[in-house]
Amino acid sequence: MHELRHDPIQRRWVIIAPERSLRPTDFKVMVQKNGIENCPFCEGHEKQTPHEIFALRKQGTGADTPGWQVRVAPNLYPVLKIEGKLERRGAGIYDVINAIGAHEVIIETPQHDLKMPDYPDEHMAKVIIAYRERIRDLMRDGRFRYVLVFKNEGRDAGASLSHSHTQLIATPVTPLIVALELDSSRDYYRLKERCLICDILAQEKDGTRIVSQNEDFVALCPFASRFPYEMFLAPKKHSHDFTLLDDAGALSLGRMLKDVLSRLRTTLGNPPFNFMIHTGPNTKMMPHRPGYWGTLAYDYHWHIEIIPRLTSVAGFEWGTGFYINSTPPEEAAGNLRDMTSQAPVTP
Amino acid sequence: MHELRHDPIQRRWVIIAPERSLRPTDFKVMVQKNGIENCPFCEGHEKQTPHEIFALRKQGTGADTPGWQVRVAPNLYPVLKIEGKLERRGAGIYDVINAIGAHEVIIETPQHDLKMPDYPDEHMAKVIIAYRERIRDLMRDGRFRYVLVFKNEGRDAGASLSHSHTQLIATPVTPLIVALELDSSRDYYRLKERCLICDILAQEKDGTRIVSQNEDFVALCPFASRFPYEMFLAPKKHSHDFTLLDDAGALSLGRMLKDVLSRLRTTLGNPPFNFMIHTGPNTKMMPHRPGYWGTLAYDYHWHIEIIPRLTSVAGFEWGTGFYINSTPPEEAAGNLRDMTSQAPVTP
Repeated sequence: MHELRHDPIQRRWVIIAPERSLRPTDFKVMVQKNGIENCPFCEGHEKQTPHEIFALRKQGTGADTPGWQVRVAPNLYPVLKIEGKLERRGAGIYDVINAIGAHEVIIETPQHDLKMPDYPDEHMAKVIIAYRERIRDLMRDGRFRYVLVFKNEGRDAGASLSHSHTQLIATPVTPLIVALELDSSRDYYRLKERCLICDILAQEKDGTRIVSQNEDFVALCPFASRFPYEMFLAPKKHSHDFTLLDDAGALSLGRMLKDVLSRLRTTLGNPPFNFMIHTGPNTKMMPHRPGYWGTLAYDYHWHIEIIPRLTSVAGFEWGTGFYINSTPPEEAAGNLRDMTSQAPVTP
Repeated sequence: MHELRHDPIQRRWVIIAPERSLRPTDFKVMVQKNGIENCPFCEGHEKQTPHEIFALRKQGTGADTPGWQVRVAPNLYPVLKIEGKLERRGAGIYDVINAIGAHEVIIETPQHDLKMPDYPDEHMAKVIIAYRERIRDLMRDGRFRYVLVFKNEGRDAGASLSHSHTQLIATPVTPLIVALELDSSRDYYRLKERCLICDILAQEKDGTRIVSQNEDFVALCPFASRFPYEMFLAPKKHSHDFTLLDDAGALSLGRMLKDVLSRLRTTLGNPPFNFMIHTGPNTKMMPHRPGYWGTLAYDYHWHIEIIPRLTSVAGFEWGTGFYINSTPPEEAAGNLRDMTSQAPVTP
């Protein structure tokens, strides 16, 4: 009973993945630490992961052997599985899809202790290229409507292995928050014939909320940031699709991402964080919705959300999608620009 | 610069509350413990809170003195303030509302260490009545579109004081997730001329996901639960408005809430949890949207979401509204029905 279920009240999809299930009292002890000796992501330990799907590696080295710079393998405990025919069915009032999808791990570096801000620029570009190639490949599969690339850094951000990695989940549905973004972008475009995020970036040119920028990308603390030091990173030139990024673009994006993560580390003392890429969905999957997101290429603008995990989130936020943020984004952006770090003070 | 800000991309509102702001490195040390001697919620310490707004107390005892059973006071650090005229303005592409609202604390009991499942039924009914009276009162204020009642129990669920309390925030906007629920309920009603949640409860009568029920209320683990052991508690008889609950209803709801929280405590070993009441919005505030939620009384069905905080939430969930749940709700409901508790086992 591994399946995708739809909630008709809040219109969100949930993956029910009972293979991962624990007994009631196990939740307290599920944290896992691992050193180099038993790290499945270290060079030389390639046999500890499922067979690699993609790698950037030294010429002449073979799959599942040392010699790689970036390596992608299926998640050993996938929440969705690649094999099978997509089956949508009703269960009375509810909707169910069998758990078809992809769940992959992008091992960013062969080195156990290196973190993203420390990668050489050329290496960081390879990580971005690995993201791009995997999204491109999975988007060819008509069963998948969305490919979500996300990184959990630090235990409190959900990482169960400390060796630096990113995850990817391809799903037969568009996630709720991305669908909300697609709707608001489409509605704005219909009204203005301009891209919402292009207009936001134009307004943000005054700079109070900008953290960093280069020729191609800008990172800012959003006007309505949900969390202290939340960031939004987007290409300056309109593009709805992350996979249209060329190799020069990957180098430039890598530099910007390294820059802002390094600012985060200095300013906040190496906090746990998450980032996720929001790109357009696979429209091949939507022949039954002609025109629904038909202006996608014009109205949607891909971006990356970066969320440091500094505060715990209370029921208020969970239950409502309504957030309280104690740090104005203008202040956060200023501190990140200056890399202001202060000693701990009891509040 | 204390204000409500709207995110045009994800259409959510955020309260920017900088009075609570901390220096960047303070986030690590913001946890607060408190004993009886300096607990502002204990009987005899009434002067440590702002003046009480409402209390159920022994006849003849005065406001802000001992003798109360349930007591409501403004939050000492309110995120929204009650005084002032509501002002909506544009800030270029963004929307802003000044931070008008209410932020109150419902002190559930004069006793420092008593928890909700331990209250006598009659006392629990008084807590529910306090919720009802405060929502009723605040709904009379045309500036407020929504009154959200929520409880954070345990430090990991966001509680900063251990003395049992509930919070209430009245806002000039409808929170995103409630608005989503209102939309889906309205759309379903237009299609079927039946209430979505009534239909869900009818389908759930087979009982596999039901945790507990009495004559008036039912608690179940939702079909598409986001979290292990998540629960949904609703009246069996259709009602869109929590404040229509009479005193007998408050007693019955209190019994059901005590019952399910007690099951949660036994089954999961006293986990931190949140609950929040989802009731209809204040439609007085929507003269500019005639008919938008005009069938509210027929189509919306108030309910309580209960979320134990067992697992940490990764970037994937934050960034997408798309959840992975390792515990099928059928299994969770079974364990909660039987109060199955097992010794911790390393996974």
